[in-house]
This record gives sequence, structure tokens and C-alpha cells, in this order.
Amino acid sequence: METPWEYRYAYRTQAMKSSAIREILKLTQQPEIISLAGGLPAPKVFPVKEFQEAAYKVLEENPERALQYGTTEGYLPLREMIAERSARFGLNVNPANISITSGSQQALDLIGRLFVNRGDRIIVETPSYLGALQAWDAYGAEYIPIPMDEEGMITSELEKALRKGAKFIYVLPNFQNPSGVTLSLKRRQELVKLADQYGTPIIEDDPYGQIRFEGEHLPPVAVVDSQFRGETGNNYDGNVIYLSTFSKLLAPGLRIAWAIGPESVMRRMVQAKQGADLHTSSFNQMAVYEVGKNNFLDKHVEIIRATYKERRDAMLEAMDELFPPEVKWTHPEGGMFLFVTLPKGLDAAVLLEKAVKKSVAYVPGGVFHPDGGGENTMRLNFSFSDPDTIREGIARLGQMLKEEIYVK
Amino acid sequence: METPWEYRYAYRTQAMKSSAIREILKLTQQPEIISLAGGLPAPKVFPVKEFQEAAYKVLEENPERALQYGTTEGYLPLREMIAERSARFGLNVNPANISITSGSQQALDLIGRLFVNRGDRIIVETPSYLGALQAWDAYGAEYIPIPMDEEGMITSELEKALRKGAKFIYVLPNFQNPSGVTLSLKRRQELVKLADQYGTPIIEDDPYGQIRFEGEHLPPVAVVDSQFRGETGNNYDGNVIYLSTFSKLLAPGLRIAWAIGPESVMRRMVQAKQGADLHTSSFNQMAVYEVGKNNFLDKHVEIIRATYKERRDAMLEAMDELFPPEVKWTHPEGGMFLFVTLPKGLDAAVLLEKAVKKSVAYVPGGVFHPDGGGENTMRLNFSFSDPDTIREGIARLGQMLKEEIYVK
Repeated sequence: METPWEYRYAYRTQAMKSSAIREILKLTQQPEIISLAGGLPAPKVFPVKEFQEAAYKVLEENPERALQYGTTEGYLPLREMIAERSARFGLNVNPANISITSGSQQALDLIGRLFVNRGDRIIVETPSYLGALQAWDAYGAEYIPIPMDEEGMITSELEKALRKGAKFIYVLPNFQNPSGVTLSLKRRQELVKLADQYGTPIIEDDPYGQIRFEGEHLPPVAVVDSQFRGETGNNYDGNVIYLSTFSKLLAPGLRIAWAIGPESVMRRMVQAKQGADLHTSSFNQMAVYEVGKNNFLDKHVEIIRATYKERRDAMLEAMDELFPPEVKWTHPEGGMFLFVTLPKGLDAAVLLEKAVKKSVAYVPGGVFHPDGGGENTMRLNFSFSDPDTIREGIARLGQMLKEEIYVK
Repeated sequence: METPWEYRYAYRTQAMKSSAIREILKLTQQPEIISLAGGLPAPKVFPVKEFQEAAYKVLEENPERALQYGTTEGYLPLREMIAERSARFGLNVNPANISITSGSQQALDLIGRLFVNRGDRIIVETPSYLGALQAWDAYGAEYIPIPMDEEGMITSELEKALRKGAKFIYVLPNFQNPSGVTLSLKRRQELVKLADQYGTPIIEDDPYGQIRFEGEHLPPVAVVDSQFRGETGNNYDGNVIYLSTFSKLLAPGLRIAWAIGPESVMRRMVQAKQGADLHTSSFNQMAVYEVGKNNFLDKHVEIIRATYKERRDAMLEAMDELFPPEVKWTHPEGGMFLFVTLPKGLDAAVLLEKAVKKSVAYVPGGVFHPDGGGENTMRLNFSFSDPDTIREGIARLGQMLKEEIYVK
């Protein structure tokens, strides 16, 4: 008899679509394609030797811990290291404010699990990070999109959105994925004030904050919030859950990230994580701690900044030279992405097929817009490919765009 | 102003309780306590040297893959290895039938996400695995418990339950956690037949199947199902999702497990996993493949079997000698646990406090009963402690039980 699987799925599976980005990633694994599509770090900045030594050391000195089940909240020395680093960036927290997660994607999922009832509304920047939308779609979230300009989320639009009622506000303040835009200090302050006024929490997603090439480091929204409430001491109890990750600072293949928030919220997050995957790999947490300790991260991030700056510069220069003047793009001061706006009427999703024929790939910007729209936009990644490859990729894209704009 | 977190939680957080087992685990991390509570493998069977070599090799030969983002479905050579091993146990599958998960706990969670609407009913053995109940509680599951005897789930009770309507049946056929009981071949056949008759799928959770000390290996329920439908070829398309893990065969700290099921279901599971954690650590998958390949697992499992058999024997012998005759227990042919039934009226949860005063711990059986009941039961683990420690732990428990039964 036929098996009944197809008729057994829960309502939320209707909202589960395979990520467009990941489907394109599969397509672009063919070696002849220049991929400006994915969000991959440059393999050349992976600290391979350091991980080799750390893996050896951890298994030599403490195998019974590295290979055994661990606590759900995470390896204490790693959480202490994160607390110490956070304090240096102005976020005064202790290990009880910190939960280790299996990548920031898991933190986004756990936040959905903790807070999102079917039909709940979430205020997001538009465009916004696809992985967050995908995580929260599964819990039946709906979205209130706020437009952005070169200073990030336009906070003057925020109050209207807050009055519609929202479970929380989701913001990527630094070199946002996909736009590459950074939320200005003034906007951070307005965001914090309005969120407090309407009693609406903020999720701050900050995978790239450390990867700034130029300009001044801005305080995380959580720090602005902490200052706004006059918090003292190192037990953060504010209005923000702050997310970051070692995926961009060390390597994504380890899947080690962290969430920072009030102790009461972290306790709930730990409960949710128990049901989700018990705990994150003990071995990987210990290896990341071994590699990251003694301020290795501070030295290593300089290499990442220099590498990505060179690549961003190569991309911007090539675009200036080779893209038609009708095309506009953002100029990120850090991170891994920039965002391109084509003349109205061009559909980046349709053009992708032509681009792939020219052996170059990007992510059509429409997928980042929870409200639809953005058909004439595309996200380009500059972290993965070397400068020569980036120039060649931009040349091919420029050729394709010129054909579209001038020949048609 | 007060932050509004407490008023923002979704309905499902009400069902999230910190796992009783994990809370007790914390308590029993004090070194003077003999813990028969947790479900930890013996550290002495961890293949430490092999993981050291594998970690080095993987990072030497393929660092760009080991440290980079990977595909959601998992590392292909690992899935091929699992397919090859599964075929040897009679389950003819190909890599498209296999998804890698971050521990079996994640597979349980993804199954909840895919199939459980709030209020959906799941048929479970009583007692059943706490981690599964915890995973599905978060999706609003309700349970229809089926009692067990020494042959496992009493399948003559199953039809009545199936007529009540259930999303799926959850069964741990080998050395069940917590009972230690194995589902007989006849019952496996009845289960498969009834599930087919009522069009109700089966989730088969099999972390311990390989860890049999004595008696004959029984075919997985998925194999019985495959035979029942006369399947040929290696593209399983039956009525079972089969779960297993490297946590008990190699080491839990790596968090590498797998799910086997029809291709269409695995595609959905991969979509769900994208939103949950993108993918499981590339590095760990490659390390587990390196350690596991060339039939290392077959040799290594012999060491585990011998070690755990000695420990189970030590526990059973000590119980025969030191437990009051009013107390009964199961005699598992493998796995990591046995289950104790105290005289009616004794409450194992209440007694735990007294046991901890005597520096010995167990898990009160009530937590494994989704329908309540089981207050007079306890789960004992025999995999973690060495035989002498087990004997001492049983002596302390026996002393406590005698005081309760005879003195009061």
C-alpha cells in the first residue's frame, strides 16, 4: 500500500522552502563558475594550523570532556572568553548571559521557538537576512518590513510599525546581509528608545561587526540599550538579544556561535536548545576556545580585514569601470556583501540564468524582501573569491547587464 | 523601564521544562557521587587516538572543506558509508535516503517540526525516551501510551490506540531507553502490519542496536517493513523513519547522527534542517568518516560490547545480592540501561534525595511516563561507571531501599 507521508506534514512545512541561496550554491559548485552568490568566508583566512594544534591538544589533555556529552549552555571557558571580549566592546556581561549555539542559524531558530506564535509579526529591515526569515517562517511568523537608506533602517518609519504590534524587532546593524549597510549611531539610539517606549524587544544579529575595514567602530545596539537604561555591573538585563558567531572570525565548518541576553531569557533558550540538539559539539567548543584564547582573535581579525578589504576594493573598482552607469550599488565599510540596484524593469532572478551561462552567479535580491519587491536588486559577495576572480566575475556581469540595458 | 521579555514567550514555552535528567546530571557532577543517572558512554571506549589522527588528517588534506560551510544533507562519503553499513544489516538504502543530523535529538526535533501540529497525538511506549517527549512537547504533541512487557510494546493494545488517530508511532526497539527491553520479532511484524493497515508511519529510534551483548540480532523495524512491502532495490520508500547515531558507537561529543527514510521525506527534513542550523559541522562529519571507515566500527563495537557487558553483569549480580527481593528489574541483552520497579507506594523521585545523601544517583522513572504513573520506578545506567563503582553504587541504593522497605 502507498505510504501516507505526504498527508502527514504539519502546517508549518508549507512555509519551508529550500533556501534559494543554497540551491544556487549547489548550481555554482561547478568549478568553472565564478560565484559571487554564496556567503562563504575566504578559505585562505582559515587558521588551519591553529585548529590542527588545538584539536590535538584538546584530545591529548581532556579527551573525556571533548568527546563526551556536555552541558546545553556551553563550555564555560569559552563563555568566559566571550564575556571578556564583549566587555572590551562595551557589553558588560557574565557567562550566565551567554549561550553557545550551533551556528547563529540555531540561535535564530531558538528565538522563533521561544517567541513566535503563528501569525505573530516581526519588524525587519527590508531587505533582510534570508536565514532569519526562513527560521521564523517555520513558526508561522509574519513580517512588518522597514525600508533602509545609507544609514540603515529608517527609524522614522519604525514608530508606525511598532504601533501595529510586533513580537520583536530584528536588525543587522553592521554591514548588513544582504545590503552591506551599517546602522548609524543616531539611528541605533532612536531604535533603542522607540523599542523601549513600545515595550518591544530587539534581536541584534551581528556576525560581521569585527570585520570593519575603515571608519569608526559603532557600539552594538545592546550597548546603546545598556547605556540608555543606565545599567551598571556585568549582568546584562536589557531589551536586546545579541547574536554573533565564530563562523566569520575563525571558520563556519565548526558551527560555533553565541547569543547574549538577560539571564532569564538565556535560561529559556537553554531549555529550548535541550529539545533541539541537547548541546553543541564539546570538541568544537573546546577547539575554538583553544584557538581563540590569548587574544589570537585580535591578531587574526586583522588578516581577515586586510583580505576582505582588498577584495571589496577590487569589486568596487571593477564595478566603477565595467558596470553601466544606470546601475547603482552600496559601498560597505566592512563585512562580506554589497547590494546592487538595477534599472527598474530588470528582473535579477530572470537575469541569473543568463549570468550562469556566462559562468558567473549572484543572489537575486527579491528573496531578501519579505514583502515582495526588490526584483531589480542583487547581492554580491566579495569575501570568497580572490581579487582577480572578482574582477573577471564583475566583467562578465557587466557585459551581461550592458547587453540587457542597451541591446534590448 | 522593565523589559517585556516575560510577556513575549510563545505558547510552546509552557511545555518546555528543563530535562529532569540533565538537571540531575548537573547535581551529580560532584566527584563523590556515584552516578547511575545519566546516559553517558564510558569514556574509556572513546577512540581518542583515532580521532586525533583523523582531525589532523582531515585538516591536512582538506581544510577548505572541513572548515567551510557544507551541504545541509551531510557529507557524501559519510552518507555512503552509512548506506553500505545499513545494507549489511538488511536495510537497502542509498545516500538520498540518509540525512546527517546534529545528534539524534535534532532528528527528533526535525520530525516534530515536520509532522506535529499542536494537539496531534503520537503513539509511544510507556515508559519512553524523555528526549523525544521533550522535543515533541515543544510542538504541542499529545501522547497515546502503550504499555510494555518483556517483549516490548504490547502490540495487542496498539490497534485500539491506532483507531484513536495518531500522527505516527514512536518506538525504540532495541534495549529501550529507559526500560532496557527489546521488541520481539513477532511484535515487530505485528507493529509493521498494523501501522500499514491504519496508514500510520513509524519512527524507529535505534541508538543502541549494535550494542548487543548476547542473544540474536533482530532486524530493524524498517527492514521488517521493507520485507512486508516486498521492496527491492536500494531506494527505501516505506513507512518508517529510522534513526541512529555515532554517539554510542564512537563519541557523543561530536554530535553526529543520521536519519533514514523515503527520499521525499528526507528532502523535507533537509529543508527543515536548513532553518534549524544550516548544516552539521563539516569537520566533525569528516572526522567521523575518517575514524569509521575501513570497518573500524566493526572492530570497535566489540570493545564497547565487552565493556558494557561486564558492567551490566556487575550491576545485575550486585542487585541480585544487595537489593531487597520486593524490588524487580529488567535484564537487558544490550544497551546502557535497566529499569527497576519498587514496591507500590514507594516514590523514586522522593527517594532520590535520600540516595544523593548516600552519594548515589539515578533517574526517577516517572519522567519517562507521558501519562503519569511510574512513580515507583527508576532507570539505572550501567555504561558509564566501572564495575567496582557500580557495585558500590548498587550497595548504597540497596541499603537505602532496605531502610525504606523494612524500617518504615
